[in-house]
This record gives sequence, structure tokens and C-alpha cells, in this order.
Amino acid sequence: MATVTLINYDDASPDVRAVFDDIKRTRNIPDVNNFWKALANHPETLKRTWEALREIMRPGSLDPLTKEMIYVAVSVANNCDYCIHSHTASAFAKGMTGAQYAELLAVVGMASQTNALATAMKVPIDAQFQAESRR
Amino acid sequence: MATVTLINYDDASPDVRAVFDDIKRTRNIPDVNNFWKALANHPETLKRTWEALREIMRPGSLDPLTKEMIYVAVSVANNCDYCIHSHTASAFAKGMTGAQYAELLAVVGMASQTNALATAMKVPIDAQFQAESRR
Amino acid sequence: MATVTLINYDDASPDVRAVFDDIKRTRNIPDVNNFWKALANHPETLKRTWEALREIMRPGSLDPLTKEMIYVAVSVANNCDYCIHSHTASAFAKGMTGAQYAELLAVVGMASQTNALATAMKVPIDAQFQAESRR
Amino acid sequence: MATVTLINYDDASPDVRAVFDDIKRTRNIPDVNNFWKALANHPETLKRTWEALREIMRPGSLDPLTKEMIYVAVSVANNCDYCIHSHTASAFAKGMTGAQYAELLAVVGMASQTNALATAMKVPIDAQFQAESRR
Amino acid sequence: MATVTLINYDDASPDVRAVFDDIKRTRNIPDVNNFWKALANHPETLKRTWEALREIMRPGSLDPLTKEMIYVAVSVANNCDYCIHSHTASAFAKGMTGAQYAELLAVVGMASQTNALATAMKVPIDAQFQAESRR
Amino acid sequence: MATVTLINYDDASPDVRAVFDDIKRTRNIPDVNNFWKALANHPETLKRTWEALREIMRPGSLDPLTKEMIYVAVSVANNCDYCIHSHTASAFAKGMTGAQYAELLAVVGMASQTNALATAMKVPIDAQFQAESRR
Repeated sequence: MATVTLINYDDASPDVRAVFDDIKRTRNIPDVNNFWKALANHPETLKRTWEALREIMRPGSLDPLTKEMIYVAVSVANNCDYCIHSHTASAFAKGMTGAQYAELLAVVGMASQTNALATAMKVPIDAQFQAESRR
Repeated sequence: MATVTLINYDDASPDVRAVFDDIKRTRNIPDVNNFWKALANHPETLKRTWEALREIMRPGSLDPLTKEMIYVAVSVANNCDYCIHSHTASAFAKGMTGAQYAELLAVVGMASQTNALATAMKVPIDAQFQAESRR
Repeated sequence: MATVTLINYDDASPDVRAVFDDIKRTRNIPDVNNFWKALANHPETLKRTWEALREIMRPGSLDPLTKEMIYVAVSVANNCDYCIHSHTASAFAKGMTGAQYAELLAVVGMASQTNALATAMKVPIDAQFQAESRR
Repeated sequence: MATVTLINYDDASPDVRAVFDDIKRTRNIPDVNNFWKALANHPETLKRTWEALREIMRPGSLDPLTKEMIYVAVSVANNCDYCIHSHTASAFAKGMTGAQYAELLAVVGMASQTNALATAMKVPIDAQFQAESRR
Repeated sequence: MATVTLINYDDASPDVRAVFDDIKRTRNIPDVNNFWKALANHPETLKRTWEALREIMRPGSLDPLTKEMIYVAVSVANNCDYCIHSHTASAFAKGMTGAQYAELLAVVGMASQTNALATAMKVPIDAQFQAESRR
Repeated sequence: MATVTLINYDDASPDVRAVFDDIKRTRNIPDVNNFWKALANHPETLKRTWEALREIMRPGSLDPLTKEMIYVAVSVANNCDYCIHSHTASAFAKGMTGAQYAELLAVVGMASQTNALATAMKVPIDAQFQAESRR
């Protein structure tokens, strides 16, 4: 159960409705999902979060599916139930295949393992990594 | 400073050298990096970790750069210093552009924010997400 | 479902009852909540945890509501379901307004985002921060 | 060492300089700190992050020091080195006393402990918490 | 609800069945648990994960119960619901007493607290720790 | 660099010295380590933390080395640099062998991987786990 009341379109203030309308138009969906209905309790946060998300997730140097898979990976690492469900569903909706999902999960699992091992042993960073990542 | 001594090729046992040789051959590099030299203290873990990584990171339904960016995303979320440096460098070495890196970071940052917001409000999961993610 | 049986007052040993009585008296409530009933399986941990919590959460240089909001922030970052619910409820019980809650969430979300960005880029720490924080 | 080059004012593009100018004016400081110089590699992220931060951290229902302490708490829980240093320094700069800092740390530590205990035992959520947090 | 369909033995491919058979034989149980049925969607990940787990959890320099308790501790710190339930149950099945469980939880809680405190204050590492841990 | 000044015995107040003396006597060491010198800025937190740690880490149903290894595991999962160094060193000082350390790391790494996989797929919890863990 949420810590806030979900606000539906009919009960929303004009500024919340404006954001809801933009979400529905941008995503071509009949209603916004629960995350936005929860954020609608804080209209400023709703507007800022939606506008940032819309800007960040639009096609750019990375295609939308790649971005969505990265979103899933972070949500798993951060253990956000809602976000794992919503972004996994979004990735499938954007064309992720079962084989791609399997590989995404394998990378996430492997990274979690080597993250723990490198952290445990406090492995010193190789000089060449720093040069390469600053290119 | 590492919690273990880094083991160089010249001081390594035959089974460790066999793994080091496979890493160098597979990646076409003159020496393995510090992570493997640290793991060499535990030859079984070294072998198992390398073989799993080799299998998971090879080209498949996802291309190697996408996998590497997912690896970076998880390493950031798990806050692994060594892994952030090594996998960011690997992603650049595999052709990640500055623009792609910028978008990768933006997605990781955005996901971290909405993860926190959804977790804080305990947003109930929309029914349609579950249907979509099980397809 | 809990990994332990919740222990109610009527079934509790005298030392557990003594802690339960102190909790009820201090908080002026008719019964302790489930966290304490779960901890009652480990009377030493119950006693130590309650006494530390009572000492830490009492009014001091920070008022109780500020402490409670900090508790919510940490619980969100650590993703503790039970704690998010219980401390969000406690903060409201101590007078947190909807507007304050909205700002608390906005700060938690923003911090999560910039935490991820600074961690991803391994930003070097500015010299002046260290001087100021040691004052 | 950062994964990106820090960009100083003299080397910055006009849109980056505009953000730097706003940061310096808003905070009344002679130069921006390293976080912004790192983000300047991604002008869109720089602008969006700064504008969100400026909006969120301004005085509102919560005073700036309370917001800063919540920021420290989240940064500790997320283990962001840079952010712990920068926001602890900011909190001191905004008037946090040593006694307040001691209480902040005590709450963060206590929350981390009870978060772990409640998570470990999967304590079921009390019905009254849900009612109270939805008020 | 899972993001994948659970695959039962009767619906499984021969390579999945081979892994399921090995799990059942090794653990002397009539059916595999849900984790393996979920992983069966990705036969390669299923096989690799099971083989690694079987190798790592067998008796060695550490006895199986100690390994299981370490597994619980990590699962709590990583906040994995499923894993907390399954490995706590496994630890009890391997003979963990209520008193041992109480001490395990107390250590996990204490570590979480001092982890947060040391992280918050950025305590510099004592020279002698490094010497001792490299022995 | 620490966010606080480390307080040495000679500069400490009587109540801090009393805790330092107890630490030195209990552990039979000539000086306390940096964690305690940092906590000495907050005498109440110093005293409470030391007394809880002393109680929790003494021999009980679990032997001190097992407790120390669990402490390392949690510190790795929580990514606390200081704690990884100090508790890995303590575990070696209490007799942990290189082989035991290798197995400890392998379990921590494996748990981190399966934690991520189970979390990603939201695997439903098997009924029998709940029954067993409540015994």
C-alpha cells in the first residue's frame, strides 16, 4: 500500500492534468500509470520528473530499447520493485526479445558478482583504465 | 591497498597461468589486469569467474558495447570503484562515444532518482506491467 | 511472512515484558508494533536496540521530527519496506505536513541522482570541502 | 581520478558558462566545484541537474539546513564519497553544529541497523502505519 | 508476480531437465524451488548458476552452515526478499539454532550500523590493517 | 580525509578515555584504531557503539571468527572501505586461513549474483521456505 493516495485524472488539479495529458500524448496511452498518480501529490516533483524523464529517454545516441535495458539494470541493482516491473514491461513493449532479456540478466548478475569480489579485495585500479576512460 | 597480494604471471601456478593465457589470447592484450591478479589467490574462483565472464560478455543477442554499458550501470549502482574504472574504460575501448556516455550517465542518474521516489512512496504495481513482462 | 514468530505481550518472558512496558510508556501507546514483537525472539537484541533507539531519537540538538525525516531518508535509500512504512507514519504522527513530505522526497530523489552521477564519474573531492567539514 | 576531464570556466562553451554563472551567483562563490566541472562534459545534464537542485534545495517547508542534512544521510546510505564530503561541508557552512552532526550520524547509524534487522526478519507491516502515512 | 513464467519439470527441455535432476539428486529433494524454475527460461544461465553454486557451497575450509549464514548476511545487506527467505530456511534446515540465528542477526545489524558510521566520517584506514590483511 | 578530527588518548576527555581504556584492555592492544578516534567526537555514540560491539562480538553460539567473517561479508555488501579493511584484518588476526578467505569471498560473490537474479525476476517465494524459517 502506498504512503500517499493515488490521484486520478478526474481528481487532479489543472497543472497535474497538463502533465498527465503530456504523458498520455507522448506515450500514446489512455491513462498514466501509478507512479505518476503517486507523484501527483507533489505537482512540482511530478512536472520536473516527467520533463527530465521525457528528455532523457527520447532517442539519441542510444536507442530507446538500450536505454530501457540500462534502466532495468539500475532498478535491479537498486532493488526497486515497482521500477523493475515497470521498466521490464517497457523494455518488452519496446521489442526486447526473451534472448535479449536473458543476456541482460546474465550481465547484471555477473556484474553484481565481480563488483562484490573487486570491492572485497580492494583491487588497485590499473593505470591504463584511467587513461582510456578519459579519452 | 588490496587485501591480497597481486600475483603476476611469473609467480603464478600452472593452472593460474592457463587462465591468464586464455584471458590474454581472448582479449589480445599483453598482460591481465589487477582484478585477475588478485583473484589468482583463489585459482578456483579465478577460473570460474573468467569462464563465466567470457561466456556472458561474448557477442549474442546483445552486442558487446551494450553489454559493457549495462556493466557500467550496475557497477555505478553497486558503487564498485574498480569496476566503474575498468568497465568505463572497456566501453570506451569498444567504441562508446562521449555522447553515448553522456546518455548512459543520464539514464543511470534518472533511474536512481525514480527508484528512490517509487520506493519511498511504495507505489503499487500496475496490473498491465505484470502481463507485459511475462510475455 | 516473517522469518520468526511474532511474540505478543501475553506470551513474553519477564525481561521482554519489561522492554515492551518501557516502549509503551515512553511512546504512550497501547501495544508495541511488530518490529519489537519480532525482535522479542532475541531478548538481548530487543533490549539493546530499544535502549539505543530511545536515546538517539529523544529531543536533542535536532528536534524529533527532523530525526524522523532523516530516518525515513535512510530507510528509503536502504530500501527497507517495513521501516519506510513505520517511519513515514511516525513522521506524519509527529506533525510532518504534506508539503514537508513532498520536499523530503524531492531531496531524497535528487540526492540519489547526484550520488549516482558523482560516483559514475569518480569526481575528485574539492580541497575546500575537507577543510570545512573538519571545522 | 575522474572518468572525464574537468572543464574549467575558461574552456567552457557559452551554455556551460551560463550555468556556471548561475551557480556562482546563486551560491555567491568565486568558482563552481568539481561536480559541475565534471558534468560540464554533458551540457544538457549539467543544466537539468543544476536547475533541479536549485529548485529543490531552496528554502520551502523545510529549511535549507534540514534539507542538507537529509542530503548527507542519503549520500552516506548510498556511499557516495564525493557527496558525503561536499554535503557535509555544505551542512557545516549552513550552520550545522558539531552536536547536530553527532545526532545526524547517530540517527543514520541507528536507521541502518534497524533497516537490516527488519529486512532480515521480514517483519510484517502493522496495519496502523498504512493508515497514518496516507493521511 | 515474476517477470518470467516458472518452468516446471514436465514442460522443461532436456538440458533444463538435466540440471533439475542434478539439483534434486544433490539436495535429495523431490522438486527444485522457484528460483531454478525461473532461471530455466535461460538454460545457459541456469546451468552456469547451478554449477557455480554447487561448487561454492559444498563443504570445504568452511562448513556448509557457516557458508549458509554468510549467504543470509549478504542477502539481507542486498535486500533480496526471495534469497532472505530461501537461505534463512536453508540455514535452519542445516541445523542453525535459534540462538545462532539471533547472533547472526545481531552481527548483521551491528555491521550495518558501523558501516554507516565509518562511511559517514570517511575514517582513514589504519596502517596495520593493511599489513595484517595481506598476510 | 575524515570529516572529523581524530581524537587521540592524550587529548581525550575522561569519559572518552574510559571507553578507550576498555577497548584496549578487552582487545589487549596498545592503542585504539581510527574508527574509535573518530567516534570520540561524539562520546555518547562512542560509548554506545563500543558497548554494543563488545557484547555482540564476544564468543556465544557463534565463535568469534565466524562472526568476524559475517562482518566482512556485510561490509563488502555495504561497500564500506574502512570496515572491509579492518574486519578482514581482524578475521586474519583471529585465525582465518587463506583458504577460508577464498571460500568466504566466493560465497559473497555468488550470493551477490543470485541476489540480483532473484530480484530481477521477482521470483515468488516457495511456501516451504516460510514454514522452515519459522521453526
